Amino acid sequence: MNSVSADGLRAVSGTDASESERVEQWGGLRLDAFDPKAFRTNAEIAVSKLERYLADSSIRGLTLTDPEILLEKARALMAEPEGRLGGLDEHRLGEILDLYIRTGIQVHSPGYMGRQFSGVVPLAGVVDFVSSVVNQPSSFYEAGQLPRVAECLMADELNRFIGWPQGRFAMITTSGGSLANLTAMLAARNDKLPRFWSEGAFALSGQPRPAIAVGEDAHYSVHRAAGILGIGDDQIVVLPCNGRRQIDIAAVQPTLQAAEDRGLKVFCLVASAGTTSIGAFDSLGELAAIAHARDIWLHVDGTHGASLLVSDALRHKLEGIEDVDSLAWDAHKMMFVPAMCTLLFYKNKEKSYGAFVQEASYVFEKAPDVVTEFDSAEQNFECTKRPMIMGLWVLWALYGPRLFAEKIEYLCQLTGKAHAVLEDEPEFAALHEPEANILCFRYVPSNLPHHRLGDFQVAIRNRIRKEGRFFISKVDIEGLAALRVVMMNHRIHIGHFQALLREIRTVGQSILKEWAAAASENEWAFGACRQPERLRTSV
Amino acid sequence: MNSVSADGLRAVSGTDASESERVEQWGGLRLDAFDPKAFRTNAEIAVSKLERYLADSSIRGLTLTDPEILLEKARALMAEPEGRLGGLDEHRLGEILDLYIRTGIQVHSPGYMGRQFSGVVPLAGVVDFVSSVVNQPSSFYEAGQLPRVAECLMADELNRFIGWPQGRFAMITTSGGSLANLTAMLAARNDKLPRFWSEGAFALSGQPRPAIAVGEDAHYSVHRAAGILGIGDDQIVVLPCNGRRQIDIAAVQPTLQAAEDRGLKVFCLVASAGTTSIGAFDSLGELAAIAHARDIWLHVDGTHGASLLVSDALRHKLEGIEDVDSLAWDAHKMMFVPAMCTLLFYKNKEKSYGAFVQEASYVFEKAPDVVTEFDSAEQNFECTKRPMIMGLWVLWALYGPRLFAEKIEYLCQLTGKAHAVLEDEPEFAALHEPEANILCFRYVPSNLPHHRLGDFQVAIRNRIRKEGRFFISKVDIEGLAALRVVMMNHRIHIGHFQALLREIRTVGQSILKEWAAAASENEWAFGACRQPERLRTSV
Repeated sequence: MNSVSADGLRAVSGTDASESERVEQWGGLRLDAFDPKAFRTNAEIAVSKLERYLADSSIRGLTLTDPEILLEKARALMAEPEGRLGGLDEHRLGEILDLYIRTGIQVHSPGYMGRQFSGVVPLAGVVDFVSSVVNQPSSFYEAGQLPRVAECLMADELNRFIGWPQGRFAMITTSGGSLANLTAMLAARNDKLPRFWSEGAFALSGQPRPAIAVGEDAHYSVHRAAGILGIGDDQIVVLPCNGRRQIDIAAVQPTLQAAEDRGLKVFCLVASAGTTSIGAFDSLGELAAIAHARDIWLHVDGTHGASLLVSDALRHKLEGIEDVDSLAWDAHKMMFVPAMCTLLFYKNKEKSYGAFVQEASYVFEKAPDVVTEFDSAEQNFECTKRPMIMGLWVLWALYGPRLFAEKIEYLCQLTGKAHAVLEDEPEFAALHEPEANILCFRYVPSNLPHHRLGDFQVAIRNRIRKEGRFFISKVDIEGLAALRVVMMNHRIHIGHFQALLREIRTVGQSILKEWAAAASENEWAFGACRQPERLRTSV
Repeated sequence: MNSVSADGLRAVSGTDASESERVEQWGGLRLDAFDPKAFRTNAEIAVSKLERYLADSSIRGLTLTDPEILLEKARALMAEPEGRLGGLDEHRLGEILDLYIRTGIQVHSPGYMGRQFSGVVPLAGVVDFVSSVVNQPSSFYEAGQLPRVAECLMADELNRFIGWPQGRFAMITTSGGSLANLTAMLAARNDKLPRFWSEGAFALSGQPRPAIAVGEDAHYSVHRAAGILGIGDDQIVVLPCNGRRQIDIAAVQPTLQAAEDRGLKVFCLVASAGTTSIGAFDSLGELAAIAHARDIWLHVDGTHGASLLVSDALRHKLEGIEDVDSLAWDAHKMMFVPAMCTLLFYKNKEKSYGAFVQEASYVFEKAPDVVTEFDSAEQNFECTKRPMIMGLWVLWALYGPRLFAEKIEYLCQLTGKAHAVLEDEPEFAALHEPEANILCFRYVPSNLPHHRLGDFQVAIRNRIRKEGRFFISKVDIEGLAALRVVMMNHRIHIGHFQALLREIRTVGQSILKEWAAAASENEWAFGACRQPERLRTSV
């Protein structure tokens, strides 16, 4: 870039740009908050703490702390107003960062088996750091040139695994899977019901009510979208699952027909590639054939499972993906980059412009040119948007797809092994054969009263979370709670899973003893099991 | 937290957790991508480059590059698939980061006067870095304990300037101003039209159509929300502006009445505290009185201007804020933290639960307890959400409100001075007296053909952007383009603005000469002005 030297500035402006004058103009504000040397010092504090954190391979879960106690602790770290004017307190910064790291779910530890966010590939965190400082929100080419270009490159790289004709599809990045699902469903609504945008549902009075068909296990964001978009929650047509908790293909046509007979017009079908609950993959090819024969937009919530596309060994789980209309893909899940980094793919580029119909002079240019053609704001919900692609692109550029493929394959194999271990344990019941890296099961010891089956799993999850050695989650399967592990971490091996089972057994037996004691004391046993675990009162 | 030692693990699991075994299980994936030492090396590369970047106070704007050229350059930085297996190429990482920093808008330079995102307080970038690595998405207390607690603390800190009763209001963080506006308007819709969520607009057949009233200069995300929410773009009632481009209070009642007479029922009015175009502040107290008398929800888009609340000198711009129903506030604008960090305030805490009505067993707990009461997922669009509050909270904790107040006051004073400079320049026309840190004006030299007034401003903005010394934006005011500066950077002083005016003069006169030459060559002059600037073909 061309820059104007300080001398040049004085020459043209006749004004002395001295620092002291600026300080005076500021009314005394300490410029040290902006001092590059202070930045280095602070960054080094963070890097040291993060390096130690990343090197710690001990098994640990979460230090779940009573919110009121943590609130007090955090409040104490805030200086008094009068005390805050003397520049940065490095010691206090260190304390804050320690507390932040210590109270988080330990996503980089093998004790973390609980949710779908991931310990990141550290380099992606470094790139995100650069994004935070250079602060280039990227819905417009001018305001994030390299991120926009990286989006184009990653779109082509990832589409190699989808298989759409180059130049005909579109990919945008957006702030999370819920927003990607909403955006795709909005594009579907505007495509199939073009007057809805300007007239609202009133456009359709007297016509069949528009409806959205979703699998029984669809993510809650998909249900919410129907409520948000003015379709109405009541107009969700639930497609039943088969024994593997996929959408039951045999039931789709009859369910859609029954909906039509009730006066509904299904315009969008949302399938899952990796359900949140058990990681099931719907049969995309078959659903596409049914959907398109009925003029229905097929959107795939692949936020969890789309990443399997990069693996030669696992790609078949998404067979038929080339026939769907849109696909949401969270790179912050199985591509191991910081949240949020969501990719939304459209088979037909033109349709990606249908989600939002708008004009604003300060952002949208009236005269399209080579620059504005690279803008994505017309396709994006966001005006200001984090340049989220950068971490993913840099990993891809420097390590290639194998980094992702091999880690994903390892995690899916590990989950398969965990399932095999469960099959050999008489007191554990696996609820499904894992399709990916999610496994749901229950601990069902012979001394467990059958009517307490679900409560027992919840009590185990809570106790384990409180103990802080492992972090797992719970999920309801057919209305009954189950334990759930999500293998996101390559540091986990099967021995860790076996240690988890042993912990579940120990914890479970203590709970049963407590319940028995409570019952013998004539307490209301059900109430006792609902008692929240006492949380840590010190951090 | 309690941790299980490696020995303990072997003891309980009977499995040897050796590194070599894990590498074998991985099928050869290089673990160096996860090596904490490599992390340090990479982080140090980034820190050095960022320190140099922050120290560079030269005047520069943007190296606007032909997208195709940048695409080629970026593609060349991606290793061949075969070449990517040998671990990290630090030299290449350095090249990528250099390109990223170099091609961005230079938000930390005094040449940057163009948009509403900011050069960040560097410490906020450091804290964001920690968030990227520990990766604790924060809609659930367990998955981001300190961020959730920091949200509670910041809510109370900032509410001191709003003035609602403690414990009765709510504040959530969300991914950007557009999402905050949508969420608030959805809460308004569900509050005033409670059957809309489940039944869609069909609930209202035969009744007056619901409508949303917005100021003439409302942000495009507000218009979009009407289309998204099923209200319909046609049901937007535009409230005309007065001479200061605020909503004209005298016109509100008649406009609402006319809408009602047309069969519309306005349920939500969206005002602005700092419009995007010129930074105008609507009269919130007066609007609140009108809105509430008509049972209308008053939402304030304060994404740009709400930050003025922290300044004793500027708070009066938002007089009446305590009477509104909801307020969107972007901390990534005038609180100088990395994008995105948006705060959404509700006067009535209960109403914040009305935006989304949902249940999902794997996230929402059936039995509320001390932990789940701190979850924000039921109030949040997002399921996974960046712990965006952390940067803001740490700055507040360590520097206090004065850091923000003094910088904001400086920027607003600077903009006032810039306006005074323009008033003394006969060839420049300021379009308004600045209310905050946005100033719109036109260069109107005597030799400019009057019918080219708007095109001329666009041509100037494009040429300046291309030259790369300054970065400014353009906006249409009453249908005609104008130049726009947004003072987000404390490094700017009035001399820089004077240098910008000189550059505008130079560039403008060259453009006029080119236009005259083109006209004399019988080219279609209008077309010539629409020619895009030739962009840089090397970076």
